[in-house]
Amino acid sequence: MTLIKTLLPAAALIALPTLGLAQEADVTPPNEEIGYIFTTFMFLVTGFLVMWMAAGFTMLEAGLVRQKNVTMQLTKNIALFSIAALMYYAIGYNLMYPGDGWSIDGVLGAFSMAAMEPVGLADTETDLTYASVGSDFFFQLMFCATTASIVSGTLAERIKLWPFLIFVIVLTGLIYPIQASWKWGGGFLDAAGFLDFAGSTVVHSVGGWAALAGALILGPRLGKYKDGRVIPIMGSNLPLATLGTFILWLGWFGFNGGSQLYMDTAGNVADISRIFANTNTAAAGGAIAALILTQLMYKKVDLTMVLNGALAGLVSITAEPLTPGLGAATLIGAVGGVIVVFAVPFLDRVKIDDVVGAIPVHLMAGIWGTIAVVLTNADASLGTQLYSIVVVGAFTFVVSGVLWFVLKTVMGIRVSSEDEINGLDMAELGMEAYPEFSKS
Amino acid sequence: MTLIKTLLPAAALIALPTLGLAQEADVTPPNEEIGYIFTTFMFLVTGFLVMWMAAGFTMLEAGLVRQKNVTMQLTKNIALFSIAALMYYAIGYNLMYPGDGWSIDGVLGAFSMAAMEPVGLADTETDLTYASVGSDFFFQLMFCATTASIVSGTLAERIKLWPFLIFVIVLTGLIYPIQASWKWGGGFLDAAGFLDFAGSTVVHSVGGWAALAGALILGPRLGKYKDGRVIPIMGSNLPLATLGTFILWLGWFGFNGGSQLYMDTAGNVADISRIFANTNTAAAGGAIAALILTQLMYKKVDLTMVLNGALAGLVSITAEPLTPGLGAATLIGAVGGVIVVFAVPFLDRVKIDDVVGAIPVHLMAGIWGTIAVVLTNADASLGTQLYSIVVVGAFTFVVSGVLWFVLKTVMGIRVSSEDEINGLDMAELGMEAYPEFSKS
Amino acid sequence: MTLIKTLLPAAALIALPTLGLAQEADVTPPNEEIGYIFTTFMFLVTGFLVMWMAAGFTMLEAGLVRQKNVTMQLTKNIALFSIAALMYYAIGYNLMYPGDGWSIDGVLGAFSMAAMEPVGLADTETDLTYASVGSDFFFQLMFCATTASIVSGTLAERIKLWPFLIFVIVLTGLIYPIQASWKWGGGFLDAAGFLDFAGSTVVHSVGGWAALAGALILGPRLGKYKDGRVIPIMGSNLPLATLGTFILWLGWFGFNGGSQLYMDTAGNVADISRIFANTNTAAAGGAIAALILTQLMYKKVDLTMVLNGALAGLVSITAEPLTPGLGAATLIGAVGGVIVVFAVPFLDRVKIDDVVGAIPVHLMAGIWGTIAVVLTNADASLGTQLYSIVVVGAFTFVVSGVLWFVLKTVMGIRVSSEDEINGLDMAELGMEAYPEFSKS
Repeated sequence: MTLIKTLLPAAALIALPTLGLAQEADVTPPNEEIGYIFTTFMFLVTGFLVMWMAAGFTMLEAGLVRQKNVTMQLTKNIALFSIAALMYYAIGYNLMYPGDGWSIDGVLGAFSMAAMEPVGLADTETDLTYASVGSDFFFQLMFCATTASIVSGTLAERIKLWPFLIFVIVLTGLIYPIQASWKWGGGFLDAAGFLDFAGSTVVHSVGGWAALAGALILGPRLGKYKDGRVIPIMGSNLPLATLGTFILWLGWFGFNGGSQLYMDTAGNVADISRIFANTNTAAAGGAIAALILTQLMYKKVDLTMVLNGALAGLVSITAEPLTPGLGAATLIGAVGGVIVVFAVPFLDRVKIDDVVGAIPVHLMAGIWGTIAVVLTNADASLGTQLYSIVVVGAFTFVVSGVLWFVLKTVMGIRVSSEDEINGLDMAELGMEAYPEFSKS
Repeated sequence: MTLIKTLLPAAALIALPTLGLAQEADVTPPNEEIGYIFTTFMFLVTGFLVMWMAAGFTMLEAGLVRQKNVTMQLTKNIALFSIAALMYYAIGYNLMYPGDGWSIDGVLGAFSMAAMEPVGLADTETDLTYASVGSDFFFQLMFCATTASIVSGTLAERIKLWPFLIFVIVLTGLIYPIQASWKWGGGFLDAAGFLDFAGSTVVHSVGGWAALAGALILGPRLGKYKDGRVIPIMGSNLPLATLGTFILWLGWFGFNGGSQLYMDTAGNVADISRIFANTNTAAAGGAIAALILTQLMYKKVDLTMVLNGALAGLVSITAEPLTPGLGAATLIGAVGGVIVVFAVPFLDRVKIDDVVGAIPVHLMAGIWGTIAVVLTNADASLGTQLYSIVVVGAFTFVVSGVLWFVLKTVMGIRVSSEDEINGLDMAELGMEAYPEFSKS
Repeated sequence: MTLIKTLLPAAALIALPTLGLAQEADVTPPNEEIGYIFTTFMFLVTGFLVMWMAAGFTMLEAGLVRQKNVTMQLTKNIALFSIAALMYYAIGYNLMYPGDGWSIDGVLGAFSMAAMEPVGLADTETDLTYASVGSDFFFQLMFCATTASIVSGTLAERIKLWPFLIFVIVLTGLIYPIQASWKWGGGFLDAAGFLDFAGSTVVHSVGGWAALAGALILGPRLGKYKDGRVIPIMGSNLPLATLGTFILWLGWFGFNGGSQLYMDTAGNVADISRIFANTNTAAAGGAIAALILTQLMYKKVDLTMVLNGALAGLVSITAEPLTPGLGAATLIGAVGGVIVVFAVPFLDRVKIDDVVGAIPVHLMAGIWGTIAVVLTNADASLGTQLYSIVVVGAFTFVVSGVLWFVLKTVMGIRVSSEDEINGLDMAELGMEAYPEFSKS
């Protein structure tokens, strides 16, 4: 632990050319305080990019639901982000990073509220080898919120507001932080050698498993599957959906880039650069794969598939955005795009109604991305990756399923058929999203 | 004043461990030039976030007016931002930061145009203890523009374009910079101990007072108050309003974070981190408070209240985003959300027609936030806070009121009843925002 | 070439006050590794801002086309950005920066795929005087994508999807990188003294020339010019167009600011500040010029002209955003706004149908901006600027024209009259952008 009070002498050491530390130049920051400023500011910048993803999910989902459910989708999204912020502060952050305070080793940390350093780092012996607690909390919070955003899309157009929000409380306060602690809090999956750089499994597939459990218990929308046929239900506003995709694409640079966790050396910032470039090319690969594939399969390019292809490319590269080269990253993303094109109709065949395609994008491409780590990272073990996917999936799916079932039993999670037909906006909220546009 | 020419010797001093400056490590940057780069770049990043708020206000307002007035609202917003940019350059910046050039001490600075350092800092003796003038100008300009954005929402759907723009010229060139100089230019309110970290009063309530004066003189929209009843007028596009809110939420990290004004030490960047985290949680607190309160009061969640609740939470924390802990920041924001839920119907009861709720959000929550400083900052005096609120409010309200009155007398500020009923878009601009969507 | 291994000794030199390097303080970074981190991170931040411009073009164009063509415009935009990402990786980057590998000196570089440094800069002798290859690639890629975005707007509402995408492949893989190498790759225009800081010519006019060639060969939309009259065709969603303009305005700070290429010294970060402030004021100048001019000429402010005026202001300042003062930058931008107001009806008079006004904004204001360099930069030669404009223009126009002609001959580039009347969305994609809003 380095103290601020010893900072200037530390700076002096840098100036001594006789220390023989040269070989470690790429891991030793030029100056601890400077490294601390770099890394902390990096977390703030990448953190606001990930926060912006909340707007991306909101626009994506508002564009892909019918207009009679748009106000509800907007309400759910701003509410879930706010709930995540409060729950992660109240419980999640310290639960996820138990530090020395784990009460049941490897499973649960101490339940306590997050606390930041005092103003100006005054009167503290601050470790300057990492980043400020405030910036770390800000950054990690956004990942927790992302998990909840994934769920809202799948269950749109028929779930009641309050049961959904109660689920979000548990997801962001308990489910996400507990399983995240297994990897990122230094828990047993981390010890087992599980690799998940920015959360293909820890964030995206967790959101996907929670959504899948919900979709199974909630059932499909009325009229979606009729007489053995799948009735297409079109999104009401594709520019919004496209805007949401671009926002997510942009925010993902923060999501993956910030997960490098350090920007105090040339080596670290060069790694963050690799991650930015790989993240971008994986998204492009996923989009182009879906573009070509829908043209070949359906003779028409399908915009919503292209959007989801880009997102699947992003999810796919999230487990390992650092070690691939640009070509490998493109291919990993492209496979994500292919997965989406096949998984969306597959889910419909098994009558799992996922309004925005979140399960193909976040769960299936998340599994693929987690497996794909073994292709580019020599430290990865396929067995450990699969084991971790199963452990996290089973935990999230079972706990989410129980919770959805309890909510269904206790208060009901689905609106009435009449309300669903009339739309959730008027039935539950009494407010239309586009009150002046007449409906066809 | 440190010169660039002395930079390298200054760097050398850092390397001397015998200076006995260790206790000041949290205020002395590791190296002046490095600190200058950090702070300057921080202003550029936070500045572009605040610039982005102009888009947020635009989308929020475009979503909350009826579609017949959308083109006008868009036009006003891009025009006011552009006017603010030019007026703050031509007059405002030097008026706000008079430096040694005040002609009438404490009231007016020298009238002169802003000027940046020469290219490459060539041939200058540049002070490297702060940031570049260009970055400071860029950042401060965005605050001036924000003030004008607040006004346009309140007065929407009935004010003429040109009188509004003339008001913006005076607001951004004179009213805002003069009162801002009292606090941020080192004027008499600053000397009196007034605390307003990022402008709950200096920015937000000033916009609110100017809007209130305008609303009183302009009068309510036709049909808003009829036979003693309040007729609800719904916004035409709630996804836009939600997008605008998310943009503002994002931009606010820059608004509050950049107001730390320095990022040259570990202490400063840790403080900026506190501010980011507090700003986020205050917004969440405001949103959740409005969510719960509207459910309790009206049995239905009101999305526009939730959006305004989040914004009120942001305004509330703006006067002191640094000293509170996360819990206090959440509560301060939540009170902002409560204020909005009660203030919106209150304004309607007194027949003040505020189209987007800018007066509750920016003026009332701004007052609350300015008062709340005394709860978390031991240096704050309730008396001084109240005194400053009154001084700034009286100045802005009176000068704005006089200006609105003069504009009304000289050229008229309100469109004709016929134009208002037909919509400002066709009447004043001849261009519909959504020409192809048929109207219900 | 400085090695990481020599970094600490280099840092030691900084601490020696006797080196007599003081005069060069503004070009010598305080420490090479720190300068490398600053510049690399600057590229990542400015790069994501420029990436965000892809969303800006998408929203601008989706707002300015009729709703029957919106899905197509969205599809083209996300596809072209993805194609640019892949082509610039596969060919463009190394073609544009041939380094020592030029095969035909001054014209073509080696054809090879882009490659980044290894993870952690391990086992390499990395030059720390600039920035990471990954960050440079990421940043430069976004400029290539911007060029393609410009073309899609002009040719909207009648061009087929696949011929357009094939054109984008050639534009981003060959045309853009080849001509960009002449200036930014150290080619013959750079040697001749051509100045184009961030690409008024290299990016914007290239997009404009390619669009112009396409517009001439493609012909105007059906019904646009009838019986000698120009039939106005209104955009379907002006809030989207305004959002797109704000996104572009924001992204342009990265576009111009990042083109400083270094942020390792006080002088460089101060220059980036100048660029941010100048970029902003030029946009404001362009918007206000169009606002006033349309009021004077047509007695009504024209929002789409104001939006394009702001964009033209941005294009105009792009060739030299550093050397002007704020006043000169405002005027340079204002001239851009004036150009747009006159050029849009001029193009209609000569029956060149440019759906979004990309030719006035990017080509004409781009030429103006390139010429305007001589007004504020003493190093600029009017002759060289004009020569370079002509060379780049002739190359791009001829090659693009040949390519469009070949595409027209081989596969046809225009949809059938019936498809054009019904809209490209249903005809080519089978998917409406707003399926539930009835049409008037």
